[in-house]
Amino acid sequence: MIIGKVVGSVVSTRKNEKLVGNKFMIVEPVSSMGKGRLVAVDNVGAGIGEFVIVAVGSAARIGTDYSNAPVDAAIVGIVDDGEGLE
Amino acid sequence: MIIGKVVGSVVSTRKNEKLVGNKFMIVEPVSSMGKGRLVAVDNVGAGIGEFVIVAVGSAARIGTDYSNAPVDAAIVGIVDDGEGLE
Amino acid sequence: MIIGKVVGSVVSTRKNEKLVGNKFMIVEPVSSMGKGRLVAVDNVGAGIGEFVIVAVGSAARIGTDYSNAPVDAAIVGIVDDGEGLE
Amino acid sequence: MIIGKVVGSVVSTRKNEKLVGNKFMIVEPVSSMGKGRLVAVDNVGAGIGEFVIVAVGSAARIGTDYSNAPVDAAIVGIVDDGEGLE
Amino acid sequence: MIIGKVVGSVVSTRKNEKLVGNKFMIVEPVSSMGKGRLVAVDNVGAGIGEFVIVAVGSAARIGTDYSNAPVDAAIVGIVDDGEGLE
Repeated sequence: MIIGKVVGSVVSTRKNEKLVGNKFMIVEPVSSMGKGRLVAVDNVGAGIGEFVIVAVGSAARIGTDYSNAPVDAAIVGIVDDGEGLE
Repeated sequence: MIIGKVVGSVVSTRKNEKLVGNKFMIVEPVSSMGKGRLVAVDNVGAGIGEFVIVAVGSAARIGTDYSNAPVDAAIVGIVDDGEGLE
Repeated sequence: MIIGKVVGSVVSTRKNEKLVGNKFMIVEPVSSMGKGRLVAVDNVGAGIGEFVIVAVGSAARIGTDYSNAPVDAAIVGIVDDGEGLE
Repeated sequence: MIIGKVVGSVVSTRKNEKLVGNKFMIVEPVSSMGKGRLVAVDNVGAGIGEFVIVAVGSAARIGTDYSNAPVDAAIVGIVDDGEGLE
Repeated sequence: MIIGKVVGSVVSTRKNEKLVGNKFMIVEPVSSMGKGRLVAVDNVGAGIGEFVIVAVGSAARIGTDYSNAPVDAAIVGIVDDGEGLE
């Protein structure tokens, strides 16, 4: 998993039917975890500005609400204290 | 998932039989999501120039039309407003 | 998927038994799809110098001849016209 | 797998229910294995400062305690002697 | 798959029980296949200094001896002639 900060969201009206009702959050990894931003669905009610744990790949669909959806990244936890992570 | 812009398509006459009838779109990730272009099948009717959400890995085959095809990237949503993303 | 050019092949006599009879092609991604070369099995009869579509990850084993083999990249289509791709 | 050093942990109170009771360790890959830090669950009782073997992707859920959890990285071994690895 | 050279091995006494009895080899990809070193289990009896084909991701567990182990990289072939690859 990686830790990132929720920096925004993106709206898509025309989308795969399995994705209807989901919110797409834009997550920016903390610099030590490095790569580009990614779009993740939200499993835990994260808000803009919060630091979150993101599971990627098939993990995003295991034990989450997305087992039958084309989802490759999901927010699975909110970090209690992001200080020092950024 | 990543957000990218559909910049073209590619034609392949000789291909795996499970891929017959599919269109291969070339997607360029927005710069903040960074890596190189990729080829994705289209699940939602995206056109050239549109910003799309692309699911990669096994996600491209879950809840899409490609469950039995050798597909590792699928367009699963069209972004309503791509302004500010590029 | 990515598009690449078949630039060679590699021979391995001692290999996993599920891989016997397969040819390993070396594929160089076109520069816009960028990363390093990779080794892919060939599903469609591609030759050296041809531009091909490569599926990576579990996709290489879905709907191909490699469902039970330790294969993570397969050539699944030959591009009709590679001009402008290189 | 990659080898990395456990450099910290991260606490998440609000998280996916399948992750309750797990500890998230922050692992820094040794430089020759290169990329950014990642968050891994711990299968073997690793401590801060130890060099560990991390399995990523679906491997993190096979034969571990996380088969039904959204986990994409797990510590699966502790390196006996990390000298020369850093 | 990628081609790499076996440059060493790593010993882990405390490890996931599914990994007991396996040897962890350190593989350095040839420069054209580029990224960092990785740790792979050995399916074919490779030795230090040999050039090998490594399958990564779930492929490492398909048709190998590791179907139930947390393994994300396996040596699946030994290259007959590595000349010109390095």
